[in-house]
Amino acid sequence: MTDYTKLMSDLRQRLAEVYDLQNIVALLHWDQTTYMPPAGAKARVRQLGLVSRLAHEKFVDPAIGKLLDALEPYGASLPYDHDDAALLRVTRRLYDQAVRLPPDFMSRLHEVAAESYSVWTRARPANDFSMVAPYLKQILEMSRQLADFFPGYEHIADPLIDFSDYGMKVSILRPLFARLRDELVPLVEAITSQPPPDDHFLYRHYPEAQQLAFGLDVIRRFGFDFERGRQDKTHHPFMTKFSLYDVRITTRVKEDDLTEAMFSTFHEAGHAMYEQGIALEYEGTPLAEGTSSGVHESQSRTWENYVGRSRPFWEHFFPRLREMFPEQLHDVDVDAFYRAVNKVQKSLIRTDADEVTYNLHVIIRFELELELLEGKLTIDELPEAWRARYREYLGIEPPDDKDGVLQDVHWYSGVIGGAFQGYTLGNIIAAQFFEKALEAHPSIPDEIRQGKFDTLHGWLREQVYRHGRKYTPAELIRRVTGEDLTIEPYIRYLKRKYGELYGLSFDEG
Amino acid sequence: MTDYTKLMSDLRQRLAEVYDLQNIVALLHWDQTTYMPPAGAKARVRQLGLVSRLAHEKFVDPAIGKLLDALEPYGASLPYDHDDAALLRVTRRLYDQAVRLPPDFMSRLHEVAAESYSVWTRARPANDFSMVAPYLKQILEMSRQLADFFPGYEHIADPLIDFSDYGMKVSILRPLFARLRDELVPLVEAITSQPPPDDHFLYRHYPEAQQLAFGLDVIRRFGFDFERGRQDKTHHPFMTKFSLYDVRITTRVKEDDLTEAMFSTFHEAGHAMYEQGIALEYEGTPLAEGTSSGVHESQSRTWENYVGRSRPFWEHFFPRLREMFPEQLHDVDVDAFYRAVNKVQKSLIRTDADEVTYNLHVIIRFELELELLEGKLTIDELPEAWRARYREYLGIEPPDDKDGVLQDVHWYSGVIGGAFQGYTLGNIIAAQFFEKALEAHPSIPDEIRQGKFDTLHGWLREQVYRHGRKYTPAELIRRVTGEDLTIEPYIRYLKRKYGELYGLSFDEG
Repeated sequence: MTDYTKLMSDLRQRLAEVYDLQNIVALLHWDQTTYMPPAGAKARVRQLGLVSRLAHEKFVDPAIGKLLDALEPYGASLPYDHDDAALLRVTRRLYDQAVRLPPDFMSRLHEVAAESYSVWTRARPANDFSMVAPYLKQILEMSRQLADFFPGYEHIADPLIDFSDYGMKVSILRPLFARLRDELVPLVEAITSQPPPDDHFLYRHYPEAQQLAFGLDVIRRFGFDFERGRQDKTHHPFMTKFSLYDVRITTRVKEDDLTEAMFSTFHEAGHAMYEQGIALEYEGTPLAEGTSSGVHESQSRTWENYVGRSRPFWEHFFPRLREMFPEQLHDVDVDAFYRAVNKVQKSLIRTDADEVTYNLHVIIRFELELELLEGKLTIDELPEAWRARYREYLGIEPPDDKDGVLQDVHWYSGVIGGAFQGYTLGNIIAAQFFEKALEAHPSIPDEIRQGKFDTLHGWLREQVYRHGRKYTPAELIRRVTGEDLTIEPYIRYLKRKYGELYGLSFDEG
Repeated sequence: MTDYTKLMSDLRQRLAEVYDLQNIVALLHWDQTTYMPPAGAKARVRQLGLVSRLAHEKFVDPAIGKLLDALEPYGASLPYDHDDAALLRVTRRLYDQAVRLPPDFMSRLHEVAAESYSVWTRARPANDFSMVAPYLKQILEMSRQLADFFPGYEHIADPLIDFSDYGMKVSILRPLFARLRDELVPLVEAITSQPPPDDHFLYRHYPEAQQLAFGLDVIRRFGFDFERGRQDKTHHPFMTKFSLYDVRITTRVKEDDLTEAMFSTFHEAGHAMYEQGIALEYEGTPLAEGTSSGVHESQSRTWENYVGRSRPFWEHFFPRLREMFPEQLHDVDVDAFYRAVNKVQKSLIRTDADEVTYNLHVIIRFELELELLEGKLTIDELPEAWRARYREYLGIEPPDDKDGVLQDVHWYSGVIGGAFQGYTLGNIIAAQFFEKALEAHPSIPDEIRQGKFDTLHGWLREQVYRHGRKYTPAELIRRVTGEDLTIEPYIRYLKRKYGELYGLSFDEG
């Protein structure tokens, strides 16, 4: 009789080494962006390359394939919800994906991406798309080749989306995003026809130390566990993890913009609380990770927007904030503050966009990606297509490529396809989950008004966080909400919140 | 014909991976002691173990042995001073050493050491040697076994000393340290018969931020390269390196002790400047490292003591220090300050000891180590032997084991043998080198008096730092000074400095 216990233990041991090596890659990167002295960069690239390669080699080791084969009957004998079944299922999926990627192709892709990224860092300030266009053509071609390592796809973008949002096919996302766009365009139009709220006081001088202290105080109350995490400063904020016991976030502070550090801290804390909430018995396995970009983003958005930009939240925290910044906020009340941090405006830059317009930025990129991959759009036509789409969806047009097609690093530093959908999926899923949380616990807004987050955090841990990668995004959404992915709760949320804010009445459908 | 260029390049590539993995171990450890949140410890131990193992496995790969064999004729054809000859010579030595260490034995040793360390952390505060004695017995036994993997030694401690101070045999060190002890015992007696200088003002309140700023300013002037390094805070100060382009130091600050952060910063900067000064073409090879504990310590001591505790140094820096701390130092002048930071006293704690008594602490440990390894002393007799030796050499006796035999972590966390000699070798070698530097550049003290360190730093880079591990300690000392290891310059230095300080006249021999 096969000794499945022994085989599972062998498999776990191999996976734990891969897990640790991947987390060491994360530490090398964290140090690079936080504390590394300038001259350390070259050796760091070499170290990152080495450990990434070792992690990959150890994962695609045929011994893991053999263990998975031998354990197939064991996995099949277990209930779907059994942790071992999930571990075998998820490992099999990731293994089959990893072994299809030829190492030579992948290192060529990384080289092209690195070169392209480096050209992009000069092309963007120079506002010169033609500098980087040849690289982008190469990346588009290699993105198609990358997809072709996974024959049998419905849409050429599907395998690329699978890397970050497993199972979220174009056949699901395209109609969903089209409906969202059709809802959002008139909503944005209606809101931005109203007089904008005054938010100039957000851009007074707010000293760094107090900004950081306020952010840390809030996320401690959210439930971010500082025994298992910390916050440092970087140029671009991010969340990273070195084990389930060490989940870190970063932020950046602008002393002339109160919103920058604050909302990035809430956002990254949301990502981190998801990882910190994963069942500790998954440590060392592929289950010890958020299940997808979209679900991850749903949690960062929950804490940043659904909580951190809500009226009950500021009813509690605004008095504290004003105590901390008495001069800067002496002429501001909670209503004015709440309106200011929820100002909606048509803008050119995705990362600065508000809750309502944000998805239009994403949908534009998603649609353009698909057309590029489908061969319906060429790289040379891309800058004009970008402008046309901004005119159509947002009614504004970038005056140059710098704030147009050259804006985001994603395409220039990696792959065209699969990079953007997670942002909008996050907003949609956040609304679905949050609505369910409120249904289960109608007291949540009142608790938030008292600066208490245990009920919400507890519900999210139980429903979402603890499962890690056990369920696919689609499975998780169905488990938590009893429904499939749907934009209705999100539209309801936006119409209710912004109808009230801007004195508009929408048909909530 | 053998393609030596190809073989050298293969060898360098393999060595570079080992080098990078070792440096990643250093980063994992640095992060553990600087920024890691408390709960991260368990995963960190696993990560450290994994990467250490991978580094070791990659180094003892028989392919490296074969390359070294094939390259033997090439190495033999080169002048001794050729970098390739040195690389082959040093790699061969380290490889032959590494392959003799059975992985099973080493991991058992690490386990015992980890357990012993953990018991020691409780035994010391409890002042209970008997708690940890059984572990120390195991460690002594395993230290002997470790030495026995290198048969043919003259003295059983020699192979253990070779790990950190290659070639510094007991037959060299024992008579050298005995002579030093015979010089120091009466010197300490003479000095401490004089009234001690007043140093109470060093223990006023000195705020952390200014202390750190002062230390950083000084080491920047020394020549510490902040493009290739930084300083952070840890519980115990140390120097670490992630590449020749990223050499970091740590310090700790006590607000009621001005000397703690200051001298540890100078000390660690000395270690770091040695590493930063290594020829950059050695990056990625075993040559890219200081050649021994003793030579390393000579450089930390040079900058901490020969420079940082000298009168010319304080003639320049004391006015700045008093500007920074006007209240704390209002009643102090440069003479009083210079005397205070050079106060000699008989004390129980090695790490707090002054320049003159320090070596007696080390020599006590060195002598006891040898006797333990020789079987002339048992672990059970060790606490009493410790007390007896302190009575004999320093005229004082620890009132308990806490500040006696339980004082240092070294034996309890690793190996008995080879851990202490480097500290005293450092003081001796520093004096030899410093005397040569002054001979070559008599202007050095005047430059120091002006806050300038370029001549000294340049001379040390040229004579010592750039060579990295190219020469053995003995070879390096002979190259730099034209002499072998000798205590005369050190004795001359101590007698001159402390004779002047304490108004004593010594026969300078």
